[in-house]
Amino acid sequence: MGFWKCQQYPRVARIDLKTFRTSEIIELPNSGGNHSSPFITENTEYVVAGTRFSVPPDDKNGDVPINTYKQNFKGTISFISVAKEDGKMDIAFQIQCPGFNFDLSQAGKGVSHGWFFFSCYNTEQANTLLEVNASQKDKDFIMAVNWKKAEEYLKAGKGRKQAVRYAHNTYNESTHSATSEIRTEVTVLDSKELKDICYFFPCPKSPHGCDVSPTGEYIVGSGKLAALIPVFSFDKLQKAIAAKDYIGEFEGIPILKYESVLYGEVKKPGLGPLHTEFDNKGSAYTSMFVSSEVVKWNIKDLKVVDRVPTYYSVGHLCVAGGDTKNPNGKYMVAYDKITKDRYLPTGPELSQSAQLYDISGDKMQLILDFPTIGEPHYAQIVPADIIKNNSLKFFKMEENKNPYFSNGEGTTKVVRAGNRIDVYMTAIRSHLTPDNIEGIRMGDEVYFHVTNLEQDWDVPHGFAIKGAANAELLVMPGETQTLKWNPDKVGIFPMYCTDFCSALHQEMTGYIRVSPPGSNVPLLFSTGKNLPAADSAAKK
Amino acid sequence: MGFWKCQQYPRVARIDLKTFRTSEIIELPNSGGNHSSPFITENTEYVVAGTRFSVPPDDKNGDVPINTYKQNFKGTISFISVAKEDGKMDIAFQIQCPGFNFDLSQAGKGVSHGWFFFSCYNTEQANTLLEVNASQKDKDFIMAVNWKKAEEYLKAGKGRKQAVRYAHNTYNESTHSATSEIRTEVTVLDSKELKDICYFFPCPKSPHGCDVSPTGEYIVGSGKLAALIPVFSFDKLQKAIAAKDYIGEFEGIPILKYESVLYGEVKKPGLGPLHTEFDNKGSAYTSMFVSSEVVKWNIKDLKVVDRVPTYYSVGHLCVAGGDTKNPNGKYMVAYDKITKDRYLPTGPELSQSAQLYDISGDKMQLILDFPTIGEPHYAQIVPADIIKNNSLKFFKMEENKNPYFSNGEGTTKVVRAGNRIDVYMTAIRSHLTPDNIEGIRMGDEVYFHVTNLEQDWDVPHGFAIKGAANAELLVMPGETQTLKWNPDKVGIFPMYCTDFCSALHQEMTGYIRVSPPGSNVPLLFSTGKNLPAADSAAKK
Repeated sequence: MGFWKCQQYPRVARIDLKTFRTSEIIELPNSGGNHSSPFITENTEYVVAGTRFSVPPDDKNGDVPINTYKQNFKGTISFISVAKEDGKMDIAFQIQCPGFNFDLSQAGKGVSHGWFFFSCYNTEQANTLLEVNASQKDKDFIMAVNWKKAEEYLKAGKGRKQAVRYAHNTYNESTHSATSEIRTEVTVLDSKELKDICYFFPCPKSPHGCDVSPTGEYIVGSGKLAALIPVFSFDKLQKAIAAKDYIGEFEGIPILKYESVLYGEVKKPGLGPLHTEFDNKGSAYTSMFVSSEVVKWNIKDLKVVDRVPTYYSVGHLCVAGGDTKNPNGKYMVAYDKITKDRYLPTGPELSQSAQLYDISGDKMQLILDFPTIGEPHYAQIVPADIIKNNSLKFFKMEENKNPYFSNGEGTTKVVRAGNRIDVYMTAIRSHLTPDNIEGIRMGDEVYFHVTNLEQDWDVPHGFAIKGAANAELLVMPGETQTLKWNPDKVGIFPMYCTDFCSALHQEMTGYIRVSPPGSNVPLLFSTGKNLPAADSAAKK
Repeated sequence: MGFWKCQQYPRVARIDLKTFRTSEIIELPNSGGNHSSPFITENTEYVVAGTRFSVPPDDKNGDVPINTYKQNFKGTISFISVAKEDGKMDIAFQIQCPGFNFDLSQAGKGVSHGWFFFSCYNTEQANTLLEVNASQKDKDFIMAVNWKKAEEYLKAGKGRKQAVRYAHNTYNESTHSATSEIRTEVTVLDSKELKDICYFFPCPKSPHGCDVSPTGEYIVGSGKLAALIPVFSFDKLQKAIAAKDYIGEFEGIPILKYESVLYGEVKKPGLGPLHTEFDNKGSAYTSMFVSSEVVKWNIKDLKVVDRVPTYYSVGHLCVAGGDTKNPNGKYMVAYDKITKDRYLPTGPELSQSAQLYDISGDKMQLILDFPTIGEPHYAQIVPADIIKNNSLKFFKMEENKNPYFSNGEGTTKVVRAGNRIDVYMTAIRSHLTPDNIEGIRMGDEVYFHVTNLEQDWDVPHGFAIKGAANAELLVMPGETQTLKWNPDKVGIFPMYCTDFCSALHQEMTGYIRVSPPGSNVPLLFSTGKNLPAADSAAKK
């Protein structure tokens, strides 16, 4: 499975990589935008989501002056549990934090398993003109979260039950349909009271990427406005905490001394470090936005060993397995924010670009340059077998539990109940059944439940009705999908398959007749004969 | 400019290739699906659109039994004029034809300028089980339309004014906004009465592609169920018409004798011919769906000279300039309907695939194999300079006529009129102005008019509000775009730029405060100071 975030409507989605479809979506209460997400812990115990913007908590009066930011605005980190058996998500707990902007994060692993690291900016807590006011301090923070400790507090009942309202949507793979549930409570741990959950350590100006090395020992901060890359040590972090080596605190959270946590700094790496990934030979790769390059450096001695240009202004980068305990190395992709003249123009907005590099040798080698859509964030490269060998080729008809499933053309029918019409339809090369429907009236609500009877790989069937304003269907083999249609005109409406399953695809067509309200045209449908068959509803 | 069709909601759109944006959309009355579209005449006098499915005309009672197809269903061909100066579209006239399915078409050119050719199937006029009932006849038709003659009849007032209802939407490039106009009349010419507009000639089973050679002399029909490719002669067509060499008529339209119009047949080309394009050296290239190959043949002697496999089941193909009077040749792209095992799987639905071939030599040479989304229909390859040299890099601020345009941060404001709020906002690296807004109430209708103040290429700014359910904006440099927002909760809502214009992009943020209905929080907004400024409305 994979996870996706939505920032504008704060949510986390789980994707089933057997089908490349969304299985579940969970909304995030107390969130002002979901950016440092969806990062996962070593064994997928949790997916995290940190609020990008701080806002008043959902159960507080949010009608407050914006310039009371420091008093009223809070940051929230969500820990979403992932069930071992089926991947089902649940917001296990949230941690309430100071009103900062939480940008990116990564889980500890190996020696640092049990911890999570978040980059924070706007620790000035400005609420306007952020490009000036949020860049006042020389250093912002990385926040280290001891989530094992948080779990203990949760068990001990130290969480506060907060009234909230958020949706949790799940897709059922055997009924081929989704349900939406509204949840009304979340458990919040307060970082101010529970002092040994969160710790800050300083990181040069506006840290962005916050990346953990394969062993879990090194945490790399990338201060976008910095000209060096600080590398922190998990071991030193633990010692500094034990020694209470604090330089102060922020809303109850201890601030550790920079030098006490720092392993060392990568000197003169370039300008504008953003993200770091790792290979399997002890090297790190950092994208440099301003100087448009990827810089390779040694994790142990922090010496720059190679640099390669990008075209242009690289943001994210991806080394195969580069954020895991066992990177694959071999390939790296740089995702660029700016294309300039790299490809042919398409008006005022240009495509984004990316470069693929061979990193198996000492020198990074550009091997492919290609356009992309947007700049993918935290793209992953995984060995093909992991996905390929589990890919679902079609849905088995005998496992179809959709209540409107037709197991063959013989069971297709059209049923009226009041002004609701259910069409139990099938699609198989090269026809829709029924392909003529009469007796529909303006004002009816018509549900087309289309079952694709094919049982082979890559034979989807589409379904569209002329003038339908909502959508069309794309139904996979063995699957049942529903299109709702509100006929708003009297007349004849063609329907047809919209997929390219066959050169004969235009034969997969039919007609629907819509009569005026109150019409007595009987409900009729064809099942392969040249004239409409008898009324199925009347037969019952 | 370019043209696009929509089949499900029958429409033709005009795209401005300076900006790669839609300039205009015209809806098609009397249409049951727009497939043989948007083909253009030699000098872009017209864009045509033929109905894929026949239906009762819009002004007739459409509440008729589907099995009265032969009496009540009609096909319609639309001729949309394109204004020389600005490309503005208008339905000049429609031709009412027998109730067939109109599949594809192409304009005559050179010697055949003034004519248009349409492939038709289901000349059996079946209304159910089409894969059987529409394949009864050995030959369907190609319809030749003399549109110069149609123009004469139109001028002579032979058209019937028909009451219809369709939308015509245009985008104004200087106000950066669109208007929708409902039109209520169309002029229809009846092919039954005006006998010398339309002619049928037979074409082997279910013709699909209907392609005209560079000189305009040859019309190539591709019968999907045929094992040969018939090539028709425009010269012989004219002679046959002059000699009234008819074998009958269909609803008043003369049917010419196959042998009298035929130039010759390409023998044993493969199986399932679909589309033909041409090069600049006298060769034609036909895609063969069933035998999965492209076949190259000589236009004069109709001999097959080369064949190359595709991966797999090629549908459309594209030779550079291949449907013009002066093909560029050199490159061909085959667009495939089926991928099989070509790329890594992504669940039950696989990506489509395409192959790029070098056709400059005697033998077609595969030079690139790549995945595509869908199977592009009638894709075009044009010399880069045609588009590149006319590409718009940004909208000039001094030409911005949007009524909500702000020409700088100093003119931004927030104005209330009843429950309507207009926010005149600007975006420039790295801030939104205003970036704090108070005094909005639940139930207000808020319009954010965002002007991107940048005046350089590829510096779009995005604009999103947390939880906004409709959309986000992407505003090009110098442009003003509007986002409507209906706040439905009390609280603080972050807003931010969603584009990657700057590594500092997360600084382009701000907050909106929403108060309950009836609240007396004054309308306030910040313009770069740390506190909201005075009420702009109150100042007036």
